[in-house]
Amino acid sequence: MSMPMKQEAASLVIQLLEELGAIGADPDGGVTRLLYSPEWLQAQLFLAERMKQLGLEVRFDRVGNLYGKLQGRYQGSPVILTGSHIDTVRSGGYYDGAYGIAAGIAALTYLKDTYGEPNYTLEVVSFCEEEGSRFPLTYWGSGNVSGLYSWDGCPPITDRNQISLKEAMESSGFGKAELPEAVRDDLAAFVELHIEQGPVLEKMRKHIGIVEAIVGQRRYGITVRGETNHAGTTPMPMRKDALVGAAEMMMQLEADALLYGEPLVATVGRVEAVPNVPNVVPGEVAFTVDIRHHDEQVLEEFSSQILGKFKEIAKWRGLEMSEVSWLEAKPAPMHKALGDRLEKISGDLSLSYRRLVSGAGHDAQLFSAVCPTAMLFVPSKGGVSHSPEEYTAPEELAEGVSVLAALLYEMAYEEKLP
Amino acid sequence: MSMPMKQEAASLVIQLLEELGAIGADPDGGVTRLLYSPEWLQAQLFLAERMKQLGLEVRFDRVGNLYGKLQGRYQGSPVILTGSHIDTVRSGGYYDGAYGIAAGIAALTYLKDTYGEPNYTLEVVSFCEEEGSRFPLTYWGSGNVSGLYSWDGCPPITDRNQISLKEAMESSGFGKAELPEAVRDDLAAFVELHIEQGPVLEKMRKHIGIVEAIVGQRRYGITVRGETNHAGTTPMPMRKDALVGAAEMMMQLEADALLYGEPLVATVGRVEAVPNVPNVVPGEVAFTVDIRHHDEQVLEEFSSQILGKFKEIAKWRGLEMSEVSWLEAKPAPMHKALGDRLEKISGDLSLSYRRLVSGAGHDAQLFSAVCPTAMLFVPSKGGVSHSPEEYTAPEELAEGVSVLAALLYEMAYEEKLP
Repeated sequence: MSMPMKQEAASLVIQLLEELGAIGADPDGGVTRLLYSPEWLQAQLFLAERMKQLGLEVRFDRVGNLYGKLQGRYQGSPVILTGSHIDTVRSGGYYDGAYGIAAGIAALTYLKDTYGEPNYTLEVVSFCEEEGSRFPLTYWGSGNVSGLYSWDGCPPITDRNQISLKEAMESSGFGKAELPEAVRDDLAAFVELHIEQGPVLEKMRKHIGIVEAIVGQRRYGITVRGETNHAGTTPMPMRKDALVGAAEMMMQLEADALLYGEPLVATVGRVEAVPNVPNVVPGEVAFTVDIRHHDEQVLEEFSSQILGKFKEIAKWRGLEMSEVSWLEAKPAPMHKALGDRLEKISGDLSLSYRRLVSGAGHDAQLFSAVCPTAMLFVPSKGGVSHSPEEYTAPEELAEGVSVLAALLYEMAYEEKLP
Repeated sequence: MSMPMKQEAASLVIQLLEELGAIGADPDGGVTRLLYSPEWLQAQLFLAERMKQLGLEVRFDRVGNLYGKLQGRYQGSPVILTGSHIDTVRSGGYYDGAYGIAAGIAALTYLKDTYGEPNYTLEVVSFCEEEGSRFPLTYWGSGNVSGLYSWDGCPPITDRNQISLKEAMESSGFGKAELPEAVRDDLAAFVELHIEQGPVLEKMRKHIGIVEAIVGQRRYGITVRGETNHAGTTPMPMRKDALVGAAEMMMQLEADALLYGEPLVATVGRVEAVPNVPNVVPGEVAFTVDIRHHDEQVLEEFSSQILGKFKEIAKWRGLEMSEVSWLEAKPAPMHKALGDRLEKISGDLSLSYRRLVSGAGHDAQLFSAVCPTAMLFVPSKGGVSHSPEEYTAPEELAEGVSVLAALLYEMAYEEKLP
């Protein structure tokens, strides 16, 4: 496939995104579709109906993932899967997740209508959950497919109204034994197309981002303890000011992250001082540290070094410092040969591209240990996401579908499996 | 007077402090006597009764300040006044304010019993309010005496139960026109003895602190604005992180304050980040700056220089910075010759001393523009105040009374007015 298919794909993707954006629409212009909510169910049923209309075989699995299948010529052939998640954050945007599903539907429809039956089976998936917005877990959809989670091991967690995950699932009609189990062992490849949710492609003026890896993440809660003192009567050299100590740690973290260089990122997102009143030297400060990189060894080394430096800063200031590890997520490398193919396809379609590391988590990371997995990005205006302000232009959406469709064509029609 | 009078003074001061500590006692060991509360009234009435028993002439003024007078030989002579405040913070200590009143009563009693009638009149005052704990104002007692406030100009403020200052005053029996007006023009000197509420005397192993000045204060609210961004997808060089910007400003403030040297102090006591979640680069941070020094010009220069540096930091980081001035209190110099006399007296009594600047506000600062004013400190254990942990040892309390009594003796008996 060498011809772009912008027009048809653009029309269908934009139409699907508009229709999806109306399901769970908030008064402020955002979209809210929490897992197993009425809006969520309405969106999945809508997609199932549209897939059917477009000629795909439709099915749900036990936890509510929705598939649309274009059966290949070879019965029992390995399956090439594409798609993303249907759930949103509270008051999220039109594109996060939904774009990858809409693009998958548009690509399969285009391929079917243009080239007929493929040799290997193609499927598009609308994963039930990725964001962790209703329940305190993420990747419930792709996690069930890839084997991280299972119906039997449904965690005993509840939403903010004390409704359990299991109750919520059952109330929307899922969880029944007669539905097919979610876990799959027939995947030849997984490809996810997503908006970047960051500023790099826009700033670099590139059409396509080819993801080399999805970062691993370390998250720590740091507590610095000094002495609460009167801001007027305590001379500067006699202070044990936990806030200035924390400030020095934050500066150190930034300096070390800049020095290490891209794509490492390190962030202090939350800070709380005690007693937090203007005329008292703070005796205690708690803050968070979020460190991301695509190489587990770099993550480990950087994290242990920065924690060591924090301890040194605390020591020379006469403070105490302690840390709690809140999260350790391993990096997920994407498939090298699939990345090379995406590069060639982009070039052939005269689209500029950039290899990059995804600093955000995605469903694709669940598949990188299961089957050859690829991920590609289109630009996000201003890097904004998880907001009604999320925006990607129609021509950029179409360019992403062109690249996706070309890769799926190579795999399913030309039998070039990775 | 060259002989110490430790024993008598120690007994009376400790007895008065114990009796006062029982009025408004909290379950946690602290003391709460908010202005015009039942506990406050009980304490003032108790003190009036004890003053009367000890042979002092007692009167209240219109706003509830309590005086005990030892009439001098010369009718219409100028008055030498000593004392402090009877109100406390919520769950405060035994010594803050109460000590200066008890010490004044003990000193006058001792002088009267030992030397009889003075030449000039001596008075001890129990100011109704200094802390600002019930209503959003401070120095209501000494402010009325010194002319800063007045009954007519009673500000239209309320406590947390929406009771106005005027209503509260009237409900405890004050505010009536038949009571003497608070403002005074007959003062030859004011002397206040207080606990240090800071760590300097204890650390320096000094008995007496001779206050050279009470600091002036600048307080600012600083807001730093950057860009709220995804902590994973925003490369370090593309960030406008308001929190790291604020951290750099805090470090700069500390460095400049240390470099300027004592007794300048500068504190960031409160910090609030927005949105304050671990995986988002903070787009906005608000923090407070409290700067204190006893020289108005230093205050002015230091404050404008540090605000200028904050703006430079914001500029090179691509942030916006704005400040609001919340408080500008001018420094109050104490009387130089009275300080010299306190130094000589301490030496004569074999007490070690240190000249220092008070970083906390006190009633004495209201009098420094009205009459020669002196202030002296005794040590505070661990520098702790505004807490049930507040503590000064009995012998240290007695040493303070010795110095106070000696200075009052020189002025009232030896007619050595400043």
